[in-house]
Amino acid sequence: MTRIALVGAAGLSGLELIRLIQRHPQAELEVITSGKYAGKRLADCFPQFVGMPQTFTNHDVDLKDCDVVFLAVPNKASLDMVPRLLQEGRKVIDLSGVYRLHDTAAFKKFYKLEHTSPDVLKTAVFGLPEYFKPQIQEANLIGNPGCYPTGSLLGLLPFGDLLGLLDRPPIIDAKSGVTGAGGRVEDDTTNYVTVNENFKAYKVFVHQHQPEIQQYLSDLSPYSKMQIGEVIFTPHLLPLDRGILSTIYLHFSEALDTQAVRSRFEAADQASPFVHLLPEGTLPDVKEVQHSNRCHISVNGDESGQNWIVITAIDNLTKGAAGQALQNMNLMFGHDETAGLI
Amino acid sequence: MTRIALVGAAGLSGLELIRLIQRHPQAELEVITSGKYAGKRLADCFPQFVGMPQTFTNHDVDLKDCDVVFLAVPNKASLDMVPRLLQEGRKVIDLSGVYRLHDTAAFKKFYKLEHTSPDVLKTAVFGLPEYFKPQIQEANLIGNPGCYPTGSLLGLLPFGDLLGLLDRPPIIDAKSGVTGAGGRVEDDTTNYVTVNENFKAYKVFVHQHQPEIQQYLSDLSPYSKMQIGEVIFTPHLLPLDRGILSTIYLHFSEALDTQAVRSRFEAADQASPFVHLLPEGTLPDVKEVQHSNRCHISVNGDESGQNWIVITAIDNLTKGAAGQALQNMNLMFGHDETAGLI
Amino acid sequence: MTRIALVGAAGLSGLELIRLIQRHPQAELEVITSGKYAGKRLADCFPQFVGMPQTFTNHDVDLKDCDVVFLAVPNKASLDMVPRLLQEGRKVIDLSGVYRLHDTAAFKKFYKLEHTSPDVLKTAVFGLPEYFKPQIQEANLIGNPGCYPTGSLLGLLPFGDLLGLLDRPPIIDAKSGVTGAGGRVEDDTTNYVTVNENFKAYKVFVHQHQPEIQQYLSDLSPYSKMQIGEVIFTPHLLPLDRGILSTIYLHFSEALDTQAVRSRFEAADQASPFVHLLPEGTLPDVKEVQHSNRCHISVNGDESGQNWIVITAIDNLTKGAAGQALQNMNLMFGHDETAGLI
Amino acid sequence: MTRIALVGAAGLSGLELIRLIQRHPQAELEVITSGKYAGKRLADCFPQFVGMPQTFTNHDVDLKDCDVVFLAVPNKASLDMVPRLLQEGRKVIDLSGVYRLHDTAAFKKFYKLEHTSPDVLKTAVFGLPEYFKPQIQEANLIGNPGCYPTGSLLGLLPFGDLLGLLDRPPIIDAKSGVTGAGGRVEDDTTNYVTVNENFKAYKVFVHQHQPEIQQYLSDLSPYSKMQIGEVIFTPHLLPLDRGILSTIYLHFSEALDTQAVRSRFEAADQASPFVHLLPEGTLPDVKEVQHSNRCHISVNGDESGQNWIVITAIDNLTKGAAGQALQNMNLMFGHDETAGLI
Repeated sequence: MTRIALVGAAGLSGLELIRLIQRHPQAELEVITSGKYAGKRLADCFPQFVGMPQTFTNHDVDLKDCDVVFLAVPNKASLDMVPRLLQEGRKVIDLSGVYRLHDTAAFKKFYKLEHTSPDVLKTAVFGLPEYFKPQIQEANLIGNPGCYPTGSLLGLLPFGDLLGLLDRPPIIDAKSGVTGAGGRVEDDTTNYVTVNENFKAYKVFVHQHQPEIQQYLSDLSPYSKMQIGEVIFTPHLLPLDRGILSTIYLHFSEALDTQAVRSRFEAADQASPFVHLLPEGTLPDVKEVQHSNRCHISVNGDESGQNWIVITAIDNLTKGAAGQALQNMNLMFGHDETAGLI
Repeated sequence: MTRIALVGAAGLSGLELIRLIQRHPQAELEVITSGKYAGKRLADCFPQFVGMPQTFTNHDVDLKDCDVVFLAVPNKASLDMVPRLLQEGRKVIDLSGVYRLHDTAAFKKFYKLEHTSPDVLKTAVFGLPEYFKPQIQEANLIGNPGCYPTGSLLGLLPFGDLLGLLDRPPIIDAKSGVTGAGGRVEDDTTNYVTVNENFKAYKVFVHQHQPEIQQYLSDLSPYSKMQIGEVIFTPHLLPLDRGILSTIYLHFSEALDTQAVRSRFEAADQASPFVHLLPEGTLPDVKEVQHSNRCHISVNGDESGQNWIVITAIDNLTKGAAGQALQNMNLMFGHDETAGLI
Repeated sequence: MTRIALVGAAGLSGLELIRLIQRHPQAELEVITSGKYAGKRLADCFPQFVGMPQTFTNHDVDLKDCDVVFLAVPNKASLDMVPRLLQEGRKVIDLSGVYRLHDTAAFKKFYKLEHTSPDVLKTAVFGLPEYFKPQIQEANLIGNPGCYPTGSLLGLLPFGDLLGLLDRPPIIDAKSGVTGAGGRVEDDTTNYVTVNENFKAYKVFVHQHQPEIQQYLSDLSPYSKMQIGEVIFTPHLLPLDRGILSTIYLHFSEALDTQAVRSRFEAADQASPFVHLLPEGTLPDVKEVQHSNRCHISVNGDESGQNWIVITAIDNLTKGAAGQALQNMNLMFGHDETAGLI
Repeated sequence: MTRIALVGAAGLSGLELIRLIQRHPQAELEVITSGKYAGKRLADCFPQFVGMPQTFTNHDVDLKDCDVVFLAVPNKASLDMVPRLLQEGRKVIDLSGVYRLHDTAAFKKFYKLEHTSPDVLKTAVFGLPEYFKPQIQEANLIGNPGCYPTGSLLGLLPFGDLLGLLDRPPIIDAKSGVTGAGGRVEDDTTNYVTVNENFKAYKVFVHQHQPEIQQYLSDLSPYSKMQIGEVIFTPHLLPLDRGILSTIYLHFSEALDTQAVRSRFEAADQASPFVHLLPEGTLPDVKEVQHSNRCHISVNGDESGQNWIVITAIDNLTKGAAGQALQNMNLMFGHDETAGLI
């Protein structure tokens, strides 16, 4: 059994992890922490977990009996806690944005925060199992991907070598449910009457997931921002709980053959239990992936063969956060990659 | 022109008043106040009002050029401001709960607040135009009815003398949209992910609108809580913006004749431009009254003739708050009762 | 392994059964039928089931290799199919309304349909495991309870002997999500623009679940409609996908002791893995039971001790239909009662 | 008084027209037609119009006493009715897609319908008042713009001459509420459980509004599809009733000066009572334009000055259909352009 500590368990990602771990046959939830609920029983605070015996503790509890620590806390807290946890010999899966970007200057620009542990950062592995499986299996620290980068990269990277033929930067128009965009934050932004029957873009040109998408697109494919420019990424807020739909616009310098494109996506589908290419002409929707760890993908070319629109759908709390974190744990501890996730 | 001051203009009721006053042919919005937005232009803070010239001021602005003050502030603030405004010669329409209950002990029990101006309270008129029109026309202070009492009383009072035949207290199962139940409050209660795809009861047996319903039912009809017990009132929170549906259960000591019942409701319909009795067999829904000042009513008897279910639908922000307040202003200043409200 | 045939698999209850059976460790989904989708692969029609190998067949497929048949078809179709399936030796769990009411005259009145197999009806067991477990274990035919009766009866029956003290009939004000109230029906009633931002009552005094509630309340408790009258039941349509909240109003001829009431509900909680009594002062909401087979219950007495409001929350597709059907299968075939349901 | 006939009055656009005409000081609703509701009173079928006296007639009623006919019927019906109505001397405002595209081959390709009155088509004026006011004032036949083209063109055309500097085609990622995308159609597509908590793209590369956007962009600006390619347009379906947000991606061959861009949009704002440029840094949302005829616009450049994102918000039923139609009527009959629309 893998013994789990979940730090920041009462946030939306934390609660989703509890939901998933509950069904995991080889994992036990040893410790759950929450500043707000410390001392209270999980089942009393969140009646959906009635029957579960755990009680929230403070964050500073001793975790030495745990094999792995999931951190679902704000960026600043992750920055403080991760080095200490690693020193104590814990494996860490960090859901914050702190251990994803190589470039600490970009980190500072987008997160408004000085990176205080660049050495630790160098040891972090980006927890996108579809592209970093061997590294994840050996890692002590996982920077669990952001929800938008997950949906974007799973729609872009299957093109593989063809991305060298891009003659303009990808444009990603992404739309997220409320749990992926601030969630339970207690301010006016996610108040019901603000969000309901409403829709808007936010952080145009300045969202912190833009450099994350760009970095891994550069690292893993022949796309080069030097030559064709920076990825354009626009997030929007949907009036629904869970799900991200990413509409990705690509233009290639020459016509691509549909079968050549689909065969690459079919390979991506075959290689992962969670990536699914939809049949030609079928478009994904977010409802079909809610509460699942899957990413559904549709690839569409126009008559010219040069314009392509890729659409991906994920559940931002599952494949976009907690589910992917558990998938990473499965790989780190030798469990079936899908354990607890089907 | 009636010159209006709107104190607490940036709350949900305040904004609804602005929406309505905009269309009123004989009223001008002179002053709008807001602690949070003082000094800012209305149209910049709330783009739905683009083109309107007003700027928010602080609450302590001089209101002597205004004919009437609408107060849409918390109970404690109303308690403080109303006596002073009356002394200065303003007419006041107060949307808080402070000037509705005769009984200051009941007020203290349900509002957790000492009533500091019982003398002023005695001069207040309950602003339900369907039953207090002559008093409203002469009033200097209106206690504008609560949203739930409006929906409940308009479904009960048309029975008139027949309410003397009740042999059990009315049971009112009411369901309100979010703007009627906390609205823009910045806490977890009305957060999108808490309310969306959800439904619950709240304040069972202890909601502050119960004594308001009961008091005016006693005052205006032969119903007597001494003999058959207290009205039972249960509010629920609907996952939608606007609207209250009240399902009212009544049992009479003898069979009522359908035509006798309907004729009383038809009279209520005839007497008010905003009360509408639906045809037999037609049930109201909240969508058909949204953004309107109407109350739609359906009365339904069972085969025995002793059980009756009355269902009323109103928009909690319009007939349940701002619209009714404007209807009261129309009566106080001799305008057509429907001015600004059709 | 229990081999399952699911007849009418493409409706909302059918799809929910597939979701649940997928996780059941001792059950296999052998056959799925659908008139509309016959010949098509499940995963192509409903991408949330990607990876599942089943293909829809017509309803008239041979089911002799199956141990149990779940019927999720219209009432008329159930009436035709059940006798034949039983004759062929299948065990049948019927989700329609056909095998629940003892009284064929009441059936005809509320379902507008002649009951053509009254003999078979007599052998049917009402599939509410909390009250009929021994009979279910021996049954060949289960009349799976309606969603509203499930939520209502689980809130009423725990009172047990105390129901003999009722001096008025229970009033049940129930609110259901769209999947429980017509669901995917292709008409105007459940169109998005009709339901969204809306709320209404329907079938006042005439809903077919009223006699079902009343019959089992009479059968299983000292409540007697002869002495105090018929249960009053009003269904409403909520603008959300899943969930039923039932607010139940009771008046007793004498004051009940809170502890006496709670101890009876605690016993009901202890006796079932799915019934949960919430702590005093905590009210259930539908979100906390969505996608689960649980029923959450709150019991609330007023100061007099004579008025009680019970509130129950279930997921209409799970405990209100498919989940309860699977719970019944577990009991019929000797599996753990919770298999596939946690 | 302008006497109005509304043909196809019971559809979503028709009902929105009724709502608006109700408030118009110089217009009277003489005739309303509906195949489904012929012979029934408007107020009985749609209780939100209680108090209005009109009764639905069949489509073939005599319209000779009407000054103008609004057609809100399917494309095929418009094709048949318009020539006859013009011959009879009526002025016609047609809300279908039939009289918008110059190119009957493109019409046939996108609408799957032969254009049977190309001569009449040549006389039609595109009813976008911000760009065709003089022609509208003289027109006998208005092709009222599609909802998506309205939101797109109002975000593109203010660039004016700068559009000659585009070096790639505009990419328009548009998101519409349900009333703009099929609305009350009685099939599975707009069923509540299909749409609620869901989001998807549809008609990728093939939506009939793409040629409409492209044609008027070409006609009214230096953009040339010959040189830089076709506009890319992707519609999506939002889980809400009303509103379209269009996110428009533009790349120019040289850096544009922010003030140069804003001054052109400010001019567009000044020239129309309904076009509003938001302050720098403010993004529109659909809630702020619901039930209004306004179009709110935000223009955003990146650091390079070559990438621009324009975001527009309209209400698809008002500025995107019925409101714009009424604005056109106002111009045709010499009323204030905003009559009935504020």
